[in-house]
Amino acid sequence: MEKPTLPKGTRDFGPTVMAKRQFILNTIRGVFQLFGFQPLETPAMESLSTLTGKYGEEGDQLLFKILNSGDFLKDVEQQSLNTKDSRLITNSISEKGLRYDLTVPFARYVVMNRHEITLPFKRYQMQPVWRADRPQKGRYREFYQCDADVVGTDSLLCEAEIILMIKSAFKALGITDYTIKINHRGMLAGIAELVSANEKEASLYVAIDKLDKVGEEKVKEELLARGFAADSLITLFKILNFKGTTQAKIKFLTSEFNRSEKGMDGLKDFSEVLALLNEYGASGDQIEFDIALARGLSYYTGCIFEVKINNVAIGSVSGGGRYDNLTQAFGSKEKLSGVGISFGVDRLYDAMEELKLFPQETQISSTVLISHFDEESKRYGLGVLQTLRENGIASEIYPDPVKIQKQLDFANKKMIPYVIVIGSEEVKSGQLSVKTMKTGDQVKKSITEIISLLTGNQNQN
Amino acid sequence: MEKPTLPKGTRDFGPTVMAKRQFILNTIRGVFQLFGFQPLETPAMESLSTLTGKYGEEGDQLLFKILNSGDFLKDVEQQSLNTKDSRLITNSISEKGLRYDLTVPFARYVVMNRHEITLPFKRYQMQPVWRADRPQKGRYREFYQCDADVVGTDSLLCEAEIILMIKSAFKALGITDYTIKINHRGMLAGIAELVSANEKEASLYVAIDKLDKVGEEKVKEELLARGFAADSLITLFKILNFKGTTQAKIKFLTSEFNRSEKGMDGLKDFSEVLALLNEYGASGDQIEFDIALARGLSYYTGCIFEVKINNVAIGSVSGGGRYDNLTQAFGSKEKLSGVGISFGVDRLYDAMEELKLFPQETQISSTVLISHFDEESKRYGLGVLQTLRENGIASEIYPDPVKIQKQLDFANKKMIPYVIVIGSEEVKSGQLSVKTMKTGDQVKKSITEIISLLTGNQNQN
Repeated sequence: MEKPTLPKGTRDFGPTVMAKRQFILNTIRGVFQLFGFQPLETPAMESLSTLTGKYGEEGDQLLFKILNSGDFLKDVEQQSLNTKDSRLITNSISEKGLRYDLTVPFARYVVMNRHEITLPFKRYQMQPVWRADRPQKGRYREFYQCDADVVGTDSLLCEAEIILMIKSAFKALGITDYTIKINHRGMLAGIAELVSANEKEASLYVAIDKLDKVGEEKVKEELLARGFAADSLITLFKILNFKGTTQAKIKFLTSEFNRSEKGMDGLKDFSEVLALLNEYGASGDQIEFDIALARGLSYYTGCIFEVKINNVAIGSVSGGGRYDNLTQAFGSKEKLSGVGISFGVDRLYDAMEELKLFPQETQISSTVLISHFDEESKRYGLGVLQTLRENGIASEIYPDPVKIQKQLDFANKKMIPYVIVIGSEEVKSGQLSVKTMKTGDQVKKSITEIISLLTGNQNQN
Repeated sequence: MEKPTLPKGTRDFGPTVMAKRQFILNTIRGVFQLFGFQPLETPAMESLSTLTGKYGEEGDQLLFKILNSGDFLKDVEQQSLNTKDSRLITNSISEKGLRYDLTVPFARYVVMNRHEITLPFKRYQMQPVWRADRPQKGRYREFYQCDADVVGTDSLLCEAEIILMIKSAFKALGITDYTIKINHRGMLAGIAELVSANEKEASLYVAIDKLDKVGEEKVKEELLARGFAADSLITLFKILNFKGTTQAKIKFLTSEFNRSEKGMDGLKDFSEVLALLNEYGASGDQIEFDIALARGLSYYTGCIFEVKINNVAIGSVSGGGRYDNLTQAFGSKEKLSGVGISFGVDRLYDAMEELKLFPQETQISSTVLISHFDEESKRYGLGVLQTLRENGIASEIYPDPVKIQKQLDFANKKMIPYVIVIGSEEVKSGQLSVKTMKTGDQVKKSITEIISLLTGNQNQN
């Protein structure tokens, strides 16, 4: 029999990795809840009619589709089968797919439960998503997204709170050197107006998005090829290349946008968000007004955000923005504006690993291993074990009768910080030997003393 | 456009349900960690070669299979397509399936990572599984399993700890009236010997398993039809119908098993587990020795467990047992014995809901809503909000300028227990009105006083 393998682009998370992942997930969950967001979970499988057409043509092709159960070919016409046209036949043999992101399921949930939802609705969702992408370093076919969205209000307080949540999450994760880039689709629309992009807004955003990857010359070439006039590119890069403080940028754009209402409205929104942050007493540190931030071909209509960790060669670890109409893809007539943020757990993990930011105590293991010289001391150890656990101290006993050294090795490998060694002497006196594995120090203590030592010291997960 | 729907047998979990589910999952996770189990997560998708043949023929048919990406028909021969034989073609167009349980992925993980794993290995895993079963009340196509297993040791301490974990989990969940049924496959094998079942052990176990559902007469009919001799059934039911205390049962079986070594070995194991529980200082309450417990056609070889909540019409909420050879299905030559337990979150949820056991504070919402009469008080409220959150108090502000009554209604609907009402007077004096939503009481307090009130009182999730 061949050794089993994992499907391409998927991963197992063993204990050490899980402990770190749980640290990230629990931290983000804690921040979401601190800000009043409530949890939602949706099924891994969605009807293909829910998923298809929401992610562009490329996205449709990246959906994992589930084969209908039972005799799935029964109702497929032989004529279709003869074409051997996979796309044609897919719809006949598959009606479900795996969730591709958390936004479409959220929108579907809102439409299906609209009468029970109190607006504004603040929900968070932390679940895996699946994409049949070509796997490569840092890109997987199954990965977690952590999203928080508030829908049903236009209030710019929500934008300010998104920024505060990012700051809180990064603080709690121990990440200090990062940049929250902010822009506003209104300002980009204003620029599009100024450079007469008219119907070519999307091409403009896509090109701008590439600026930091491919450089100014390539972007210019692309835009010229797409029919932009040479003099409009001068205006464009005058704006994109403007350097200065946020205040200087605002002043500069106020003058540029005197010919664009859209631009001016975007600028006003953006300035209000900064003013609100100030009212919260939040510092402007880590915030960068980046007029060249576009976030590609997305559905955003207002403020947009993107977070990069500085001095780490990893793309953005978080991003989001305001959108106008969450539920329109499902034919809802009610316009639900909202704003959301998504954290990428895998990239955060890689960055924190590189920066050595995971606290030692994320390791999930017992605090104590009870080791024993013989059957009698093992049996005595069971009562000790029970007492430790009753006091909330994660503990285990080595289950088999093996040499003490093997039991100590086991504790070391599992990174268990304390070992209680029990032999006949300890059974008689009730004074137990406690070995601190890191230092090798060993002291004798009563069980009561051990509990007070460890509950002041303990690794709470 | 049609209203979107959910795939059959799947569910969304909105905030209220999620809060209760998280209570169950966090409680079980806490117990697993207290007992020294470490987390594992495996991908939703497994290679079909990993899954197929592990769950019997019926199980194979209940696997959700994933359509290969891209032009999946390209390499399928037209001749096969012409047969329209779904089973034949499945293997050509699908090579991955969704995980059906957590045991097979665990075994696969152990085989693939054997050199990195320290034995005995205690892992827990809490993830959804998928089965293309016919959906019905209480049976879903996506549901969570919570498994803990220890592999790599024969020690009966592990069996005792499984029982202790069940007790800890139920205590923490607030479930008091339940029964842990225990039996041992060795004793069942002993009975099979006594009734000369020889090669018909499996039929015997399946029939015994049905006893409490269909009754003695039907089971007898079935066994006679399967070729069991009438007088062997007399022996069988003499044993199955024996009533008495655990000690009385052990005494009775000790005499019955004087003709069966297997039976006697099983009885010895079982008695040792009870003796160990005694050493832990654990009471025998809730434990029932049930010689008629068989757990069907499973891979168990030693002690088996099943937990039922009394006075609730819901099947077993937890079950498990010892198995001989976790990894043999993957061709591993090393025999890894282990013992595991699985908790069914959905059934626990239903039972706890029926028994009204969910604590009020499982609700995940903000502790405080800040409401405001006008723009000035709203802006003042932002600083208050920030201070509350800095003190770990989950809080939110109503984002839009609406009437106070609407803001209070919002707090009620979201079950937010406290509302701070801010108007111009509060802004001037710094004495804020705090309304307790449950009672309607309203008092004036400084922010410092509010924080001490709430941190003594607060709903920590």
